[in-house]
Formats: sequence, structure tokens, C-alpha cells
Amino acid sequence: MIEVEYRFPPSVNAEKQAKIIAIGQTAGSWDERFSHRESQLQSHLGQVLNVITDEQGYDIARVAFPEANVENDLPSLLTMIFGKYSMAGLGKIVGVHLPKNYGQRPKFGISGIRNLLGVGDRPLVMAIFKPALGLSAADHATILKEVAFAGLDIIKDDEILGDLPLAPTLDRLAACRQVLDEVKAQTGRTVLYAVNVTGRADQLLAKARLLVENGANALLFNALSYGFSVLEALAADSAVNVPIFVHPALAGALCASAETGLSYSVVLGTLMAHSGADAVLYPAHYGSLPFDPTEEAKIREILRSQNVFPVPSAGIHPGVVPTVLEDYGNEVILNAGTGIMDHPTGPEAGVKAFFQALEWLREGKVFDVEKLPENELKTALLKWGIYER
Amino acid sequence: MIEVEYRFPPSVNAEKQAKIIAIGQTAGSWDERFSHRESQLQSHLGQVLNVITDEQGYDIARVAFPEANVENDLPSLLTMIFGKYSMAGLGKIVGVHLPKNYGQRPKFGISGIRNLLGVGDRPLVMAIFKPALGLSAADHATILKEVAFAGLDIIKDDEILGDLPLAPTLDRLAACRQVLDEVKAQTGRTVLYAVNVTGRADQLLAKARLLVENGANALLFNALSYGFSVLEALAADSAVNVPIFVHPALAGALCASAETGLSYSVVLGTLMAHSGADAVLYPAHYGSLPFDPTEEAKIREILRSQNVFPVPSAGIHPGVVPTVLEDYGNEVILNAGTGIMDHPTGPEAGVKAFFQALEWLREGKVFDVEKLPENELKTALLKWGIYER
Repeated sequence: MIEVEYRFPPSVNAEKQAKIIAIGQTAGSWDERFSHRESQLQSHLGQVLNVITDEQGYDIARVAFPEANVENDLPSLLTMIFGKYSMAGLGKIVGVHLPKNYGQRPKFGISGIRNLLGVGDRPLVMAIFKPALGLSAADHATILKEVAFAGLDIIKDDEILGDLPLAPTLDRLAACRQVLDEVKAQTGRTVLYAVNVTGRADQLLAKARLLVENGANALLFNALSYGFSVLEALAADSAVNVPIFVHPALAGALCASAETGLSYSVVLGTLMAHSGADAVLYPAHYGSLPFDPTEEAKIREILRSQNVFPVPSAGIHPGVVPTVLEDYGNEVILNAGTGIMDHPTGPEAGVKAFFQALEWLREGKVFDVEKLPENELKTALLKWGIYER
Repeated sequence: MIEVEYRFPPSVNAEKQAKIIAIGQTAGSWDERFSHRESQLQSHLGQVLNVITDEQGYDIARVAFPEANVENDLPSLLTMIFGKYSMAGLGKIVGVHLPKNYGQRPKFGISGIRNLLGVGDRPLVMAIFKPALGLSAADHATILKEVAFAGLDIIKDDEILGDLPLAPTLDRLAACRQVLDEVKAQTGRTVLYAVNVTGRADQLLAKARLLVENGANALLFNALSYGFSVLEALAADSAVNVPIFVHPALAGALCASAETGLSYSVVLGTLMAHSGADAVLYPAHYGSLPFDPTEEAKIREILRSQNVFPVPSAGIHPGVVPTVLEDYGNEVILNAGTGIMDHPTGPEAGVKAFFQALEWLREGKVFDVEKLPENELKTALLKWGIYER
């Protein structure tokens, strides 16, 4: 069974709504002419399991749906649990409980990405090409050279950067692939570049294959803008044998309201964990985006439970590393945009500052600007400060 | 240029947020190392046009974005105008203004669907197979026979009905196609059956072609559950030479909040009008779904302006026909689910009641149960009443 929690404000009769959902989102309506189909109709019906009241006085109704109603994918699931009902007024989906094997598992996930990189015992460090728009393919390679030789694990395109004439996706890949090869040859290290794959669904799927044929070793995908069915196709394609990093662009449109939509932990946690994504970005609560630490913790745990790599993003800079290690442990990818690119002495220093932070803390030392040597970490901490809870 | 209106509650500094959007959703950040690229960066920057305060005290900021930043499609547009920013707190997109030729035009649209049906001078009448789940392919054909011979223009699958073992999509089509052929042979009339096309993006696109090859003369598609990029691929595929009816499932998750997400008229109006959809369903404000008549009117006008057929749905029964004609005019498809299937004497009578209503009003007569002959319309009005504003 698939179980879904719907949360209603006190003004709404939750029991009544739950019954409307259980019937309206499954069989839809009854008709005596089909009484000979009674058992078939019954087998598709949803069922109200219970309604409880939370501490804020909101009612949470738990409704069970037969798996037989859906196609083991996310779009048919979304249509069933919230398709028409999403337009019915106040009510938010705050929990979705799927069978472990529902949907798709990641091809790589946490273990696979660690294997590719040969890094097992620390958070991975990821950067973002900036500025987002306006750079040429050669500019991308210049930036990559700085950060990759400085020790970076992963870099990604900005999610806004599509396949634009100034820096076509294949040109960016070609320019950057050369740098990745140089790093491999000179240091033995693999660095992943998650290339943003965009376009009309049919062209996007073809482009993903073409990118991999041309040496892409990771993809970035805006699953909510393009659609879960496209992510599922990418994940199922054996020719796309590289990790897929999913960006949360547009998630706020679905999740930011307290009384409608779906919660962040459902969309960026549960749905993504069953989508075939290998790694999923989401806002860290330290940053500029107003994010609830409880929702963030749920996302992290749900993703990990399906071997999907959590990628806390936004507000990540060297000064948050001590708190991040305490809160997250090692099994995360720390994704820093400006936290690397805007280091006072440049992106190379930005990467070094992160690794100095990890090393300093691994040695059991505390963060104290006074005690640090004159290094990139100190410069970073003087700029961004040390994050305090 | 692409112009977007963001609405903020009084608690938010709209001018500041508009500037954050204009830079943060385009170039992202500046860096002196790329000063040689200044003109390139400038050409991608967004621009705050103005901020006005509406009657409710909300501020509406209008931001212009260069078309050069996007790929003439909806996913890259959504990522740019609301991708990361959707997670930034309160703020709702209430208007999107695209160049007329942005995205895709419908292959059929209003004029094309009317041509297929040979009906020019009245609203079209559409029904929905019910119950949504649990019927066999043969049951579908049985229902279709009743309603199609009664004069129905279009029927569609329920949006929840996927490609399930009890009634596989191709089997439903095969059973119903036979009925459509009988109707054509005996009456000369074309009836459209919008078959719900579902699945993983690659399989869905292949299935759409297969359905058309097997005689499907229309498709139903849950664009918001599956993704706009898939709709764009369907619309661009010359082998999919049948009208695409788009269902609004999940729209409430994006649109129902007053202070976050996007307004219904943006998602079901503007975006759909540039998606390649031929006809778009949305809630009529007469019905059970709480829908704002102003938003509904905007959707209708925006769709019509791009030759996309508006399909008001939910709450449509014979008793609303006089009001509907006043409010909508002829250029709509009236989509009735229970309003046809739950007629006291059956679906055939449900269809007849609609056509009797249209004929009665065409003759300039008023709706009055006392004056009607003993017909299906009268039975319907006794059940559902005559809608009063």
C-alpha cells in the first residue's frame, strides 16, 4: 500500500476531506450499472486509516491507496494522490510512504559516487560555475582548472545555464573534459563535472546520451522544471551510465506554502529518493533561503535511506564546516557556490579553505581565527565568519 | 523581452526582492576576473521595470528578462523566473508576458478541433469515463456507445486512469475505436476520444505514436505531473497528428497559495497557451472546486488568444448552460463528468439533456422547468437545479 498524510487547518473537516480523497482520487464515482464490477471497483478504492491532531491543532489524515492504481512511477502517483484534489482548497501533503522498491533506485548513489571518486571518509566538496550566464566555454575551463587542481571533488553548471549560443553545452563539456583529463593524468584524481542537460524531452534524452558519449561523467537536471518522467527515463537509460545530480529549482512553488502543496521533505526527500536520482540538492538551513531544519533533516535521512546522496546547498562556506560536520556527519556533498567562487583570493583558495577546514577539524582542533596559520581558511573565516547556531 | 510580475505581501520589501531576482536569476553574481566579459554579462541581466501597489496593499514588481537566457521552452523559462527564487520566501508570480511566438503553437487548437468535428457554431460537449478505475476496456466501449450515439462531441479518460492491467490503454482504444467507427458509419459524425497517455518519458512518447497509429484521434495528458518538456515533445512530433487535451492535475499544488507559487492564470493560461496544447481543462467557478471567476476569465482569454480551446470543467451540468453561454460564449468545450454520467436515466440521457439545453436557448427560450416538455433536460434540471449567480 501507499500511504499519504494530508494536513488540514482547523477550519477544514479533515475526516470528510479524507473520505473525499479516498474515493474521489481513486474510483471517482459509483454507478449501479457497474455493480457487476463491485469487487474490481473495491480493489481500487482508497481507505482512510486515521486522523490525528498535531500540536498546532492541524489535523493529519492518513489515506492508503492501492499500488494497483499507479504505474510504479512518480507522475501517476502525483496524479492519484493530489491531481484534481490539489485544486480543492486548503490541504497539504506532509508525508508519502512508499514501498521500498517503488519507482527507481539510483545507478550510483552514495556508494557509487564515492567509488567513482575514490573518497570514502569525508564529506565531498562541490562547486558551481559562476557567473551563471555570460561565460564562454573557455571561461568555464579556466575556472575548472583552478578549482579542480586545488582538490575539488565535483563541479556543476549553474541550473540557469542551458544550451545557449554563447557557451553551447557540448562546447563547455569539450573544454572542461580536457581539464578533467589533465587532472587525472597529473594527480590520479577523478573530478566530476555535472553538465546541465536541458531541452524538449525527446531532444534532452538524446542529448544526455550524446554528452555521455562525449565524456560527460555526471549530469545536472532540473527535475521539477522538466518533469519526473524525464528523470525516470534518464535514470532507466543504461547508456546514461553517469550519476545524475538533481537540482531543486521550482520546489518552492510546490512546497513553500504552509497550507497547500506538498512539504519539502516529500518533494525533495521521498519523491526524489524513488526517482532514480543519484544526488539531490536542497537548501541548507544555514543559508540565505529560509529553510526549516526539521524538514532539512528529514530530506537528508530519507535520501540516505535509499542510497541517494544528500547535497545541502546555499549558505555553505568554510565557516559552517564545524556545524555541518556535527549536524550532517560525513555522508553529504557540501555544495558551495559563492562560498568557493567569491573567496577573497579566488576560487582556488576557496577550495583549499574547505579542505583546510576539514583537515583542521579531523585533527580535533577547534575553529579559532587567532590560532590558524595564515592560510586560505583564515582568509575565508575573516570574510564569512564562523557560523554560530 | 519576457516580463514577469511578482506579487509580494506588505511585509516584504518588493524593490529589494525585485533586484535580487533580476540579478540572482540571471547572471547570478559578478566577479572582477570576468570584467572582460562585462558586456556579455550585461546582455543576460534582468531588469526591474517598476513596482506598483495593488488595492490589497500588495506590491507587484515587474521584472524583464532577456529571451537570450532561455531556450524558447517552458522548463528553462520556469527555472529562470522562479527556479531557485521560489525557495526564497513569500512572493507569487501573478503574470508572465511572453512574445507571441514564444514556445509552441497548437497543431489544431480551436479552429482545428472544430474542423475535425465539423461543428462551428456552438460550445462543444465533452464527457469523462466514470468510474475512473475498475472498468474493463469493454465497459468503456459500452459507455462510449451510449454517449456517442446520443450526440456527444468528445470523451476523455479520467486523468487517474493509466495503463493498468485491467484495462490497458491500447485495449481501451481498440474497443472504443470500433464504436467511433460505427458512429461515423451510421451518422457521419466524428467523435473524439482523448486517450490518457502515461509512462516514463521515452516510453510515453513512443506510446503516443503507437496510439495514433492504432487509431487514437485525440490524447489526454497530465502535463504538470509528467512535465512540460514531455508535452513540448508530443506537440512537436508530426506523427502525433491529433489534438492534445491537457489536464490540470496537480495545478493546485503550484497555484492554490495566495502568497507563494504561481497564479492559476499563469500556469493554466499563459504557460499552457505556449506549450503546444490544443485544449486545456481548468475548473469552472460554478463547481465544487473553489475557483476565482477573475482567474477563470483570464485563463479563457489567454488560451483563446493563442487559438487554444478552453475547457471549463467540474460543476458543469445542464442547469449551468444558460449562465455558461452568457459568461463564456460559444468558444469553449463544456466538460461534464458526473453532469453526464450521473443523469437519473443514464449517460445517454445526460448527453441529450445538454443538447436539448443548447437548442432550447438557441431558440431564445428561457429555462423554466414548468415550461419544458417531459424530456431528459427536465429530468436533469429537477436533479441539479438551474444555476443562479
